Amino acid sequence: MKHPTQSDSDSPTVINDRLRPVVREGVLEVPGDLDLYHGGHLTGVHVAWRIEGPAGAPIVATLGGISAHRRVFGDKTGEGWWNEVVGPGRALDAALVRVLSFDYLGGSGETTGPRSGESFPGVSTYDQAELLLRLLNHLGVKALHAIVGASYGGMVALAFAERYPERVGEIVVISAADRAHPMATAWRSVQRRMLRFAASCGRAAEGLELARALAMATYRSPEEFAARFSGAPRKEAHGAVFPVEEYLFARGADYAARHQPEAFQCLSESIDLHQVDAGRIFVPTTAVAVREDQLVPVADVRRLVARLAHARLHEISSVYGHDAFLKEGAQLKPAFAAFLGSVA
Amino acid sequence: MKHPTQSDSDSPTVINDRLRPVVREGVLEVPGDLDLYHGGHLTGVHVAWRIEGPAGAPIVATLGGISAHRRVFGDKTGEGWWNEVVGPGRALDAALVRVLSFDYLGGSGETTGPRSGESFPGVSTYDQAELLLRLLNHLGVKALHAIVGASYGGMVALAFAERYPERVGEIVVISAADRAHPMATAWRSVQRRMLRFAASCGRAAEGLELARALAMATYRSPEEFAARFSGAPRKEAHGAVFPVEEYLFARGADYAARHQPEAFQCLSESIDLHQVDAGRIFVPTTAVAVREDQLVPVADVRRLVARLAHARLHEISSVYGHDAFLKEGAQLKPAFAAFLGSVA
Repeated sequence: MKHPTQSDSDSPTVINDRLRPVVREGVLEVPGDLDLYHGGHLTGVHVAWRIEGPAGAPIVATLGGISAHRRVFGDKTGEGWWNEVVGPGRALDAALVRVLSFDYLGGSGETTGPRSGESFPGVSTYDQAELLLRLLNHLGVKALHAIVGASYGGMVALAFAERYPERVGEIVVISAADRAHPMATAWRSVQRRMLRFAASCGRAAEGLELARALAMATYRSPEEFAARFSGAPRKEAHGAVFPVEEYLFARGADYAARHQPEAFQCLSESIDLHQVDAGRIFVPTTAVAVREDQLVPVADVRRLVARLAHARLHEISSVYGHDAFLKEGAQLKPAFAAFLGSVA
Repeated sequence: MKHPTQSDSDSPTVINDRLRPVVREGVLEVPGDLDLYHGGHLTGVHVAWRIEGPAGAPIVATLGGISAHRRVFGDKTGEGWWNEVVGPGRALDAALVRVLSFDYLGGSGETTGPRSGESFPGVSTYDQAELLLRLLNHLGVKALHAIVGASYGGMVALAFAERYPERVGEIVVISAADRAHPMATAWRSVQRRMLRFAASCGRAAEGLELARALAMATYRSPEEFAARFSGAPRKEAHGAVFPVEEYLFARGADYAARHQPEAFQCLSESIDLHQVDAGRIFVPTTAVAVREDQLVPVADVRRLVARLAHARLHEISSVYGHDAFLKEGAQLKPAFAAFLGSVA
């Protein structure tokens, strides 16, 4: 497994600057074996985590898509994966709460994940939830004030709420449901087959470029693409190159330079294996559905909410489709109001 | 170029059986050069065509998607690509009209197309329209009663109507518009990149499997996939295999066994290069839009109809999405009523 560069779990780094929120980072070494929900186990698992916010403030676990990581927000653009929505004074106000996150099991971060060229056992959203539980135990956190999860993170929030209801006050689930939609599984299974094919040609990184390019198309809405990419194609030796194609493959290449194909494979499959029992979730839930989301149709979130014991639904519209959670701070703010209101 | 097995153009095969419609098949050798709309030219082009229906009946050119061919219908299931909609007594009643079709330029049929492992110049829907014109001249057909075109065939119908209005009475355009939607271009450009990548690995047929599997996902609706593919995944050594994935890749493998990667590449690109000027089309047009079509959004067909001089719009609903034209005979029948009514 990768060796994290962070400080170890017994002495988390504490950066206390009067002008800035307290930042703590660390790596939890999970003792013994971690039994996996889909079978098998892992030994020597470590989990890279980060918490940032005013000392003593309530803790909100904040979890994103399969490419998210423990650095949720930062001072500069691009420093955190959710910088447009989370931070001091932002929609999810990190001046009021402490934001906790971790690198996913099986991902490209500093938490245990696949070694290059090797496969990794199937990872469940229940496994991610268990790592979050172990993290709370390690940090001495009796209960989270809330979990805010978007996309894959929303699935992990649901899994945590089903398993450990006494450890979280409420959850906010954005663009996620109790299981994946078969059309979304279709698109992701093509991505995974492309990756496997490319790996079998000894060109895994190029497979990740292709897979990510396809994924990018599913993250946005036809309306956004129509507005941005109506220009004429460029001619190249092998044929035409269309504006939308240049965009998708520029993003694909950028992603492939920074992520591991095997990690993408693992977490992509984890999304499609996700299945929680909504009838067994009693933690108060705010669900946010985006009408233009191609991956998580509004109907699936409505069905989830109808089956939950204590849930309300926010439906929003956004040309960003599934990516709305990264962009629509103002529209998301009301979904955070309940748990932020009680600490303001 | 491939050598067709059909009879040559000077003596078309005539199969006249009193119990069956008259069938004529042939191959037109286009004299001299064929100048291509996107630049360049082809020499020695031949076009494989077929016409079937009662002797002397009005002729309706019937054109389908990029995998369609000159055999539109047959006696047995699977004999023609549009067997569920076209034939004697069917929605497009081949007891009333003669059905003319041809294998597309650049495709996998008996018309001129790419040789294995070689690229082919960019093909325009205007080029296909020109081949249809040459075919009419060859067959001595002054004007078609109608063109019925679905998907790529609808684009060719629009191109023909713009260029040769005196040679067709009306057109029916199903699930096609004046240009491709950038989201559909996004999905197809990923397919073409997958093909090129696989070809560069010396495994072009596997690339076609992947590309076709992705294409299949875009042809249907999320509703249909949700109804058909909600079962649990199978476990394999490399990970989970989902029901929708088995379906897509079974269809992909079947397709790759019967089609040429270079032809798919050529006609896929031709769709994205398609662009006609709706303001210059004066042939009466019936457009059919399918609300669940992911590739050709209803809004694009509405916009097309608003710009056409003489057009009416049929909007239908179908879980088959873009593939509705292959399945929804009863819903399509009213769109054929105008031109069939005048010959009944």
